[in-house]
Amino acid sequence: MKELTLQEIALLLQQKDNILVLMHKSPDGDAVGCAYGICMALRKLGKNCMPVCSDPIPSKYEYITSKLPPQEFEPAFIMTVDIADTQLFGEKTAVYQDRVDLCIDHHFSNTGFAKEGYVDGKSGACAEIIAKIIELAGVEIDQDIANAIFTGISTDTGCFKYSNASSQSYRIAADMIDKGADSAYINRIMFDTKSRQRLEIERLVLDSLEFFEEDKIAAVCITKEMMQKSGAADDDTDGIAGLPRQIEGVKIGLTLNEKDSGVFKVSCRSAGDVDVSGICRCFGGGGHKAAAGCVINAPYEEAKQRLVDAARKALKGEL
Amino acid sequence: MKELTLQEIALLLQQKDNILVLMHKSPDGDAVGCAYGICMALRKLGKNCMPVCSDPIPSKYEYITSKLPPQEFEPAFIMTVDIADTQLFGEKTAVYQDRVDLCIDHHFSNTGFAKEGYVDGKSGACAEIIAKIIELAGVEIDQDIANAIFTGISTDTGCFKYSNASSQSYRIAADMIDKGADSAYINRIMFDTKSRQRLEIERLVLDSLEFFEEDKIAAVCITKEMMQKSGAADDDTDGIAGLPRQIEGVKIGLTLNEKDSGVFKVSCRSAGDVDVSGICRCFGGGGHKAAAGCVINAPYEEAKQRLVDAARKALKGEL
Repeated sequence: MKELTLQEIALLLQQKDNILVLMHKSPDGDAVGCAYGICMALRKLGKNCMPVCSDPIPSKYEYITSKLPPQEFEPAFIMTVDIADTQLFGEKTAVYQDRVDLCIDHHFSNTGFAKEGYVDGKSGACAEIIAKIIELAGVEIDQDIANAIFTGISTDTGCFKYSNASSQSYRIAADMIDKGADSAYINRIMFDTKSRQRLEIERLVLDSLEFFEEDKIAAVCITKEMMQKSGAADDDTDGIAGLPRQIEGVKIGLTLNEKDSGVFKVSCRSAGDVDVSGICRCFGGGGHKAAAGCVINAPYEEAKQRLVDAARKALKGEL
Repeated sequence: MKELTLQEIALLLQQKDNILVLMHKSPDGDAVGCAYGICMALRKLGKNCMPVCSDPIPSKYEYITSKLPPQEFEPAFIMTVDIADTQLFGEKTAVYQDRVDLCIDHHFSNTGFAKEGYVDGKSGACAEIIAKIIELAGVEIDQDIANAIFTGISTDTGCFKYSNASSQSYRIAADMIDKGADSAYINRIMFDTKSRQRLEIERLVLDSLEFFEEDKIAAVCITKEMMQKSGAADDDTDGIAGLPRQIEGVKIGLTLNEKDSGVFKVSCRSAGDVDVSGICRCFGGGGHKAAAGCVINAPYEEAKQRLVDAARKALKGEL
């Protein structure tokens, strides 16, 4: 993949038309904010432009998606936003995986699958990059674009809570508020609203809470029975893996999510002071220092015991 | 109270020495951030300066408080930060209530109790005003000051979630990050850490959850028995009044906190679309559109019923 500057990308987009903007499957706020934000901006330059995703866009993003009427055209230029790897395209857009013209991303792990692109792993959200491109392309950011960009930044930084929220993230968010972004509404919808199913699954999960190693390790499970009982869907469990680690004094949080009888998808979390990726490597998985994952095939008690044993070693720096 | 400009305040502080900076009782992050931030800055100008509070500063602010060694001196200039009313002084500082030289605040309701002052109700946090004064006084903001100011802004805006977080809030926060504020650590300690007692009281409170009026009204209680059972202290219940309103579809959240047998401190919350202050006025209380409070003397079931009846009227716009 040939690396372009942001100026070159702005110029390139000014020259192209009939542009398809691909999002990753299971789209999140940054994916939606980037794809809709850049499409809104390119439409203001008179282009045909549409976002496309293999999965439906969740209805909570309707304040963004409803502002971009559908357009039909024969795609002539394919770009991706916030996609690190073609494996994240999903069924509906897989057809484009060998013909991506331009990739804009903020994942260090980007595989360089496009002809040309720009990857900045230091941007907390890909939407920060999109905001810069829109400005360089000479498009005035209006309220709809500002809402899209703000959503991307706010959701990917956990409402500015995570360490990836840099001063740039805050500053571009401030610019978007000045352009009319309804920051309070967006943050309330994204971070201050729980479905009853979510509330119920959280309660059930917390009932399973156990502590180990002088309360420095905490483990919970999400069983299929809990999912049925609460009526929760998969996306109601988003972020639940963060709960055990939030408890005061807990260094390692373990979440065992039962995907099938005796098959657990495991999430390990720390506050960054303990490296949990080693725990998951013991079971064929991996990840980052503060967040890692793996799959364990065993009955719950055994899976938990093996994980806790590995976590004890990680605490001592032995992994 | 004579209104000063920020320039005049910076000049005044440059001229004064032996400065006492008063915080309100039950100090929060903005109080601590303002008082310690301005004291750190004034010390850099060679002044004697100490923050003082009627209540102990919670240990979670230790990363701020530990950076300012105690000083003993005869106070010659008394200033207040983030205090709207002398009633908030508390026992230890009540002696100063008639001799405040300078008041810096961001509450519209400020009673003007000082000789001179500056009140800006549009600042999300009082720490935003303090940051401006420090810059105008010609003090270079270092990491400790930046941590104090960032804490004030982040805590008073609910981690940038509430509608009082303006573009100014985000921009000053960005400046503080550039000056070295450890934003991720601060936000994790303030917003991503729960004591086990807090976790337990939350679970018990959610067990009491009831819905009314097609699930548009949700009510919970905090009983003395729950407090005992969970081992929670009063400050473990901070923010619990926000929980019922967070549930999808709920327009009015009611929290009945049992202070004594048959005495309930009531908190009403909405997302701002329904005015809940009228509900509390029915019972001799009051507050804002989105957050109001009152006290009801009655057994739980009766208190709840009377509240729900009033909330039904508020929903219909009849209050």
